[in-house]
Amino acid sequence: MGKNRLEAFSDGVLAIVITIMVLELKVPHGVGIADVQPLLPLFLSYVLSFLYVGIYWNNHHHLLHTVKQISGGILWANLHLLFWLSLFPFATAWMGENHAAPLPTAAYGVVLLMAAIAYYILQYLIICSHGKDSVLGRAVGPDLKGKLSPLAYLAAIPMAFVSPWISSGLYVFMALVWIVPDRRIERALKES
Amino acid sequence: MGKNRLEAFSDGVLAIVITIMVLELKVPHGVGIADVQPLLPLFLSYVLSFLYVGIYWNNHHHLLHTVKQISGGILWANLHLLFWLSLFPFATAWMGENHAAPLPTAAYGVVLLMAAIAYYILQYLIICSHGKDSVLGRAVGPDLKGKLSPLAYLAAIPMAFVSPWISSGLYVFMALVWIVPDRRIERALKES
Amino acid sequence: MGKNRLEAFSDGVLAIVITIMVLELKVPHGVGIADVQPLLPLFLSYVLSFLYVGIYWNNHHHLLHTVKQISGGILWANLHLLFWLSLFPFATAWMGENHAAPLPTAAYGVVLLMAAIAYYILQYLIICSHGKDSVLGRAVGPDLKGKLSPLAYLAAIPMAFVSPWISSGLYVFMALVWIVPDRRIERALKES
Amino acid sequence: MGKNRLEAFSDGVLAIVITIMVLELKVPHGVGIADVQPLLPLFLSYVLSFLYVGIYWNNHHHLLHTVKQISGGILWANLHLLFWLSLFPFATAWMGENHAAPLPTAAYGVVLLMAAIAYYILQYLIICSHGKDSVLGRAVGPDLKGKLSPLAYLAAIPMAFVSPWISSGLYVFMALVWIVPDRRIERALKES
Repeated sequence: MGKNRLEAFSDGVLAIVITIMVLELKVPHGVGIADVQPLLPLFLSYVLSFLYVGIYWNNHHHLLHTVKQISGGILWANLHLLFWLSLFPFATAWMGENHAAPLPTAAYGVVLLMAAIAYYILQYLIICSHGKDSVLGRAVGPDLKGKLSPLAYLAAIPMAFVSPWISSGLYVFMALVWIVPDRRIERALKES
Repeated sequence: MGKNRLEAFSDGVLAIVITIMVLELKVPHGVGIADVQPLLPLFLSYVLSFLYVGIYWNNHHHLLHTVKQISGGILWANLHLLFWLSLFPFATAWMGENHAAPLPTAAYGVVLLMAAIAYYILQYLIICSHGKDSVLGRAVGPDLKGKLSPLAYLAAIPMAFVSPWISSGLYVFMALVWIVPDRRIERALKES
Repeated sequence: MGKNRLEAFSDGVLAIVITIMVLELKVPHGVGIADVQPLLPLFLSYVLSFLYVGIYWNNHHHLLHTVKQISGGILWANLHLLFWLSLFPFATAWMGENHAAPLPTAAYGVVLLMAAIAYYILQYLIICSHGKDSVLGRAVGPDLKGKLSPLAYLAAIPMAFVSPWISSGLYVFMALVWIVPDRRIERALKES
Repeated sequence: MGKNRLEAFSDGVLAIVITIMVLELKVPHGVGIADVQPLLPLFLSYVLSFLYVGIYWNNHHHLLHTVKQISGGILWANLHLLFWLSLFPFATAWMGENHAAPLPTAAYGVVLLMAAIAYYILQYLIICSHGKDSVLGRAVGPDLKGKLSPLAYLAAIPMAFVSPWISSGLYVFMALVWIVPDRRIERALKES
C-alpha cells in the first residue's frame, strides 16, 4: 500500500543525487595534464560519495524489502533521510575542492552523521511498526555496523580540525565496511 | 489505466525538483565559518521548500491512491500542479539569497498560492470524476486545511511588503500544519 | 515485453527535461521589479516549452498504451524522439533570452519540427508492427493534426527571419491545438 | 526479487546522464550564426554520447531481461557501470569543447573503455549466477562485439596523441557497430 511509490520516489532522488554530484566536476578550460590535476581530489571525493549513495541505495533496498505497511511516520522518516542525502553534492564539492581544509572535511562528516541517524530512525520506525519479532526485527538484531558508523563519524568531525587526513581515512574505512551488503537481512529472510 | 505512468511521471518531476534546489547552494570558495554563514538563510529556505515538496508528494500520493480513472482533464490539472512546483527552486533561491527583501518573499508566496490552487483544482476534478460520495469525496469533506492554506498565502503576499518576517513565519506555520499527512483519507479508507 | 522499461525511461527523460528547463531562469541578483522584468520573455518561453513537453508526454502515453511488442526499431525511434526533446532546454533558453531575434526563434522551430518528425516515425513504426487494422492503426487514421504540425513548424522557420512574432504565434497556436489529448485513440479503444 | 528496483534505479541514472549532458551546451549570448558555430563540435560530441548511453540502456535492458536473482555482487557491478556512465557528461564536454586536442580525446576513450569493462564484469557475474547453459549464457556465446569494443577503445586512447581524428573515428565506428541491438539474446530467447 504505497510502498511502490515510496521506493520509486526514493530511487528517483538517489539517482539524481548520485548523478548531479558529477556536475561539480567543472570541465577544465585547458587541455593539458596540469589542467585536470586540480580536479583529482574532487574526483576522489566524488568516488567516495558515489560509494556512500550506492551503499544507502543498497541498504534502503534491503530495508524496504521486508516492509509491508507504510505509515505517515515512515514516509517522513524516509524524506528526512533523503534530505540529508541531498546535501551530498554540496558536501562532496566543498570537501573535494579544499581537501586538506578542516571545516569542509568536518562538514562532510556532519552530513554522513545526520544521514546515518536518519537511516537509524527510519529503521527503528519500520521495526516498531512490524514488531521486534518480525523478519526485519530479528535480522537487524544487535546491529553492530549501524551503531559503529555514527560513532565513527562523530569522532571524525572534531578530528578534522586536528588532521583532516585521519577524518577522510575514517570516511573511506566506514564506506568499505558498509560495501558488504546487509547479509543479516538476506540470511534471516532465507531462514524464515 | 495510465494511473501508474501519471504517478511515475509526477514522482520523477517531484524527485528532480526536490533535488535540484540544492544546486542553488553554491559551494563557497573559502573554507572558513565566514564563508558558509551567508549560505544560512538560503539553507533555511531550502529546508522549508524541501518540506513543502515533501508535503505535496505525500498528499499527491494519498490523493491519487483512491483514483481509478485518469481523464484528460486530470492529466492537465496534474501537469499544471507540476508546473508551479517546478518554480520552487527559482523562488527558493531568490528568497533565500535576499531573505529580508519584500519582493522575493512575496514571489515565494505567489508560487505557494498557485501550487495550492492547482492542487485544489486537481482534487476537485478527481472528486468530480468519482462522485462526491466516493471514498475520496467523503474523505476530503469540509477540507479546512485545503481552504485555509490559499488564504494564508494570499495574506502573506501583500504582508511581505510590510514585514517579510511575518510572511516567512506564515509559510513556516502552514508547512507545519500540513506535515501531518491527510489522515482524513486514511480514516475514510479504513471505514469504507 | 520491455514496454514498462521503455515507458519508465521515457518518463524519466521527459521529467528531467521539463524540470531542468527552469534552471535557465537564473536567479536575479537584485530584488526589485526591474530585476525580474528581463526574465519575463524567458518565463513565457518556459511556459510554452512546458506545454510542449507535457503534450509529448501525454501523446506518448496514449501511443504506447496500445503497444504490445517493442522491437529494436521502436526502441531507437523512441530514443531519437527523446534526443530532440532533450534539446528543448537549450532552444527555450536561447529563444527566451533573445525573444525578437530571428535565428533563436528559427532554431526553436527546428527543434519542434525534428521532434514532430521523430514522433511521426515512432508512430509509423508502432503502427507497422501492429498492423494498420490494429486499434492504434484505426485510431490514428487520417491524422490531420499530426500532418499539420510539421507543416506549421516548417513554415515558421523561414518566417522567423521576416517576423519572429508570427513564428512565435504559430508555436503557441500549435501548442493549443495539441493540448486536447488524442481523443481519437481514446475513442477507438472504447469502441474496440 | 529486487530486479525491478535495480532496473528502475539504473533507468533513473541513465535518464539523468543522457539529459544533463545537454546542460553543457551553454546558451550563447549572441544571436548570429557565428555565435552558435563554436557549439557545433560540442553538439556532435553530445550526439555521440547520446548514442552511447542509448546503446548501454538498450543492452542493459536486454541483459537484465533474462536475470532472475540479483546478488550483492551484481548490485555492485551495476553501480560500477553506472559510475563510469556518470562520467559521460564530463568527458563529452571536455572533448567537445577541445575537439582536436589529444588529452580530452584520450580521456573520452578511457571512460568508454572503463564502461565497457564494467559492462563485461556485470555480464560475467550475471552469467555466472545463472549458469553458462542458461538462456543468457548461450546467447552471449563467443561475444565478438563485446570483446572487440574494449580493444578498439584501448587502441584509440594512445592514438589520440598521434591523431585525435582517428580516435574520434573509432568511437563513432564502434557506436554504429553497437546500434544494432543484441539480437543474439533475442534469438536465444525465442529458441528457448
